Amino acid sequence: MSVTPRDKAVFEAGIKLGALYHQFVGSPISLKTVDSLEKAIAQSISVQPFVRSITVQIDREMVKQNLSAFGYTELKGPMLTVDAVIKYENYEVSVGMALKDGYPLMHVKDVKEV
Amino acid sequence: MSVTPRDKAVFEAGIKLGALYHQFVGSPISLKTVDSLEKAIAQSISVQPFVRSITVQIDREMVKQNLSAFGYTELKGPMLTVDAVIKYENYEVSVGMALKDGYPLMHVKDVKEV
Amino acid sequence: MSVTPRDKAVFEAGIKLGALYHQFVGSPISLKTVDSLEKAIAQSISVQPFVRSITVQIDREMVKQNLSAFGYTELKGPMLTVDAVIKYENYEVSVGMALKDGYPLMHVKDVKEV
Amino acid sequence: MSVTPRDKAVFEAGIKLGALYHQFVGSPISLKTVDSLEKAIAQSISVQPFVRSITVQIDREMVKQNLSAFGYTELKGPMLTVDAVIKYENYEVSVGMALKDGYPLMHVKDVKEV
Repeated sequence: MSVTPRDKAVFEAGIKLGALYHQFVGSPISLKTVDSLEKAIAQSISVQPFVRSITVQIDREMVKQNLSAFGYTELKGPMLTVDAVIKYENYEVSVGMALKDGYPLMHVKDVKEV
Repeated sequence: MSVTPRDKAVFEAGIKLGALYHQFVGSPISLKTVDSLEKAIAQSISVQPFVRSITVQIDREMVKQNLSAFGYTELKGPMLTVDAVIKYENYEVSVGMALKDGYPLMHVKDVKEV
Repeated sequence: MSVTPRDKAVFEAGIKLGALYHQFVGSPISLKTVDSLEKAIAQSISVQPFVRSITVQIDREMVKQNLSAFGYTELKGPMLTVDAVIKYENYEVSVGMALKDGYPLMHVKDVKEV
Repeated sequence: MSVTPRDKAVFEAGIKLGALYHQFVGSPISLKTVDSLEKAIAQSISVQPFVRSITVQIDREMVKQNLSAFGYTELKGPMLTVDAVIKYENYEVSVGMALKDGYPLMHVKDVKEV
């Protein structure tokens, strides 16, 4: 079966989420720095090819609960809610990452021809 | 358009390559440690869901050329050649990462129904 | 020889620079996102224990020269100039990372009793 | 106060632990791949300047307890026990990382003149 533009669009979307997760999970974080980390992650991924839009939210309640005796924690996968739209040729793919059943799951929400 | 098993298969393949790249690029490396890093990267990604097979090759010539005055360098994207097969439901996706036009490009090589 | 507060102060300073480098090098970046990445890196490291102050500068000229055909690049070690002050008990340690002889070198600039 | 060889030795030791942690934490891992990841981490850090020796142990029981429904987990800080000896000029510094009070703490164990 030949590889279609739709395949490539969805493939690119997967790359972005895998990259985001493994680049930024582990970053030191506190309640005061959540904003700047959210912004930097979203902007960083947005410069990659085919990224149409991206939003990154870090669960402040979870950051709070994870604060160590030293007043900080690390960004963990379950803290992340990500929504992104990737466009490749005439395909627009909506993907996301969110906590489900205790795991940070990545999923394809929609693929449309535009 | 609804999301198909084929979409999910290709999406999962993208996740794996994005993860591999951003987890391991930057690792200190020398000619003596190329073998163990190749093996660890391949094994690490192989434990993720839907990975059927994966091979990772690090260009030893490029490692050699990049060695600093201290006798080591860091794993860089262009040093990597990766081939992986991801299987999701009845779709098998072959993907790869390789140097092309100076950049480490990720690509879908084949999608087949099995 | 017993471990002194001065040893611990300098050790903590080393940890911070090693962490910064290996957490954030590899992040996708373009000229438009340099500001947010600089800020997020500095804030992220600042939440770790004993960090008194930190400044992070990313060389925009180098970002520009490294832009791929896709209009972005990755944060690389040589692009970084970092200055940080770590305080542990009564020792204040000034450390930095900067390009020297082609390599991003980390160094202790000063240790003082306060 | 001028910076001494002893300061530099301890600083280099800190760099190595910070680097190790933020480079490799987050790597996908299962019971079958613990061995290769331990080996690759130790070898990777061993190529950096001034590293005399290093051992890396990943707590298999903790890996087991953290396995997801998909049969794998990620390397987390508390799973790591690291011991390293750094030598700079005539100073040999023994450092380690180990779980203490629930946190993966890095510490200087000994500094000696050799």
